[in-house]
Amino acid sequence: MITVLAGGVGAARFLQGLVRVVSPDKITVIVNTGDDVEFFGLHVSPDIDTVTYTLAGLVDETRGWGVGGDTFHCLDSLKNLGYETWFNLGDRDLALHIHRTRLLREGLSLSQVTASFVSSFGLSLTILPMSDERVETRVNTDAGLLGFQEYMVKRGAKDRVTGIELAGVKEAHPTKGVIRAILEAQGIILAPSNPLISIGPILALKGVKEALKDSSAKVLAISPIVGGAALKGPADRMMEGLGMEVSAYQVAQLYSDFVDIFIMDNVDSGLKGRVESLGVQAILTDTIMKGLREKEALASLAIAALEIKCR
Amino acid sequence: MITVLAGGVGAARFLQGLVRVVSPDKITVIVNTGDDVEFFGLHVSPDIDTVTYTLAGLVDETRGWGVGGDTFHCLDSLKNLGYETWFNLGDRDLALHIHRTRLLREGLSLSQVTASFVSSFGLSLTILPMSDERVETRVNTDAGLLGFQEYMVKRGAKDRVTGIELAGVKEAHPTKGVIRAILEAQGIILAPSNPLISIGPILALKGVKEALKDSSAKVLAISPIVGGAALKGPADRMMEGLGMEVSAYQVAQLYSDFVDIFIMDNVDSGLKGRVESLGVQAILTDTIMKGLREKEALASLAIAALEIKCR
Repeated sequence: MITVLAGGVGAARFLQGLVRVVSPDKITVIVNTGDDVEFFGLHVSPDIDTVTYTLAGLVDETRGWGVGGDTFHCLDSLKNLGYETWFNLGDRDLALHIHRTRLLREGLSLSQVTASFVSSFGLSLTILPMSDERVETRVNTDAGLLGFQEYMVKRGAKDRVTGIELAGVKEAHPTKGVIRAILEAQGIILAPSNPLISIGPILALKGVKEALKDSSAKVLAISPIVGGAALKGPADRMMEGLGMEVSAYQVAQLYSDFVDIFIMDNVDSGLKGRVESLGVQAILTDTIMKGLREKEALASLAIAALEIKCR
Repeated sequence: MITVLAGGVGAARFLQGLVRVVSPDKITVIVNTGDDVEFFGLHVSPDIDTVTYTLAGLVDETRGWGVGGDTFHCLDSLKNLGYETWFNLGDRDLALHIHRTRLLREGLSLSQVTASFVSSFGLSLTILPMSDERVETRVNTDAGLLGFQEYMVKRGAKDRVTGIELAGVKEAHPTKGVIRAILEAQGIILAPSNPLISIGPILALKGVKEALKDSSAKVLAISPIVGGAALKGPADRMMEGLGMEVSAYQVAQLYSDFVDIFIMDNVDSGLKGRVESLGVQAILTDTIMKGLREKEALASLAIAALEIKCR
């Protein structure tokens, strides 16, 4: 059994490779819900949806999120009713938020709802929201304290980040199954996701870091920073704002308490020695997942490094 | 001030004429909510929406309901998630249901929500849901007890109707403003709507019939039955199933306790004497509202018969 800690687009692309290397029913993905947000009374879970749509083959490949070929007619009408519509929810995409919201209102937990639609999409891996309780990632910036989607989507990640708050994270519990999935895994992978606002909230939940240390499985992380820049999203700008070095080394350092193996891009070969000085095995490869071939190669390498026999 | 009791399509078409004859801010429409229904956790008010979309110029003219040129992508996706999707909710249309549901959940009443979006659509008439409390029209048929939309839309009104139940009508109160709108009107019009399941639920609410009798204004009704058939919808089949005569006379008879004037179609001239024997003034005209010209003519005639000076 493989357990993956995941954010949105980068994780989803890696998982597309992983399900081709490991039988999906042996994979548990623990997904960040710190970016969850309510629009028009509907509960949206961006990272869960991106992972689900990507694995179901429905994702808009260019954007990396939402449903390919979707239309935005409902959103246009909501705008006419006076709503702010900077968060692009397509008509096909809205179905999932309507469904989720209905089931949550009826008393199901986020993890029960997620399990039900993951199965509707024909997927056989397990997707666990990191928590059934609300954790809200907020970003302190020179423009004030912003909700994550406000910072990211409404304002285009243009503000200087001076801090990150994970509201509710101290009170929240990991979803039932999260700790066990970590403790009982044969291998654990931190996907190439934003270490601060995708993997960070999962790590900040009660007991998660301890479980990663206690697990007998090896823990492997893949750097989302390549050549000093984030492949997708604002990780680099956030790290810079927080006074961190923007490098794969910095990511390895953030994870060094519990990570055994760190996969970084060939272009960062100069950082190998520093990463190894953290007591972490550094592996160099091509981490840019252009197509299915590269995704599968990266997943195969991770599985090999974790010394897991899959087939 | 004119007060109109209204159902869906027939009433909406009549109101398109009325707003051209009377200043819209002098019109209050009391709309049936017995057909209201929840789909996918969203509150849908079919008659209010039909009236609103029609007056806003957005309605699908052919169907008489929904938004013209709408797409059904969200509904397709809901179907993939396992929902029954026999009730056609278009993408643009869904915005209104999402909006209404959000505001209801936040604690606003149906009439407050309705007022807010009627104004968003640029309309200056007053639309009052008949009640802020739930009244559910159910139809007893040879296929069992059915919700109205189930009878009407899902099963195509094909079942023999043996009874009509208005669940909750005894406990429900008319919306604030309904009784006053009737008592203080200069003229009252029962639109050409289904007398059993559109006008009937409004009349069944506490105090409504009494107010119609007590109002000093004249009460005028327009027959939705022309030449022994309903122009739209299942009124004729329902009346037949309940053992009623399917005629304009039968409609006049149902309203005879409080109606002063009854407008019926020229084709029903043979029924004039019988209608007048009910103590009701019968007026014959062309009631079929093919276009705006006919709608306006019918509205003008009603206003003239009510002896209201408008301009």
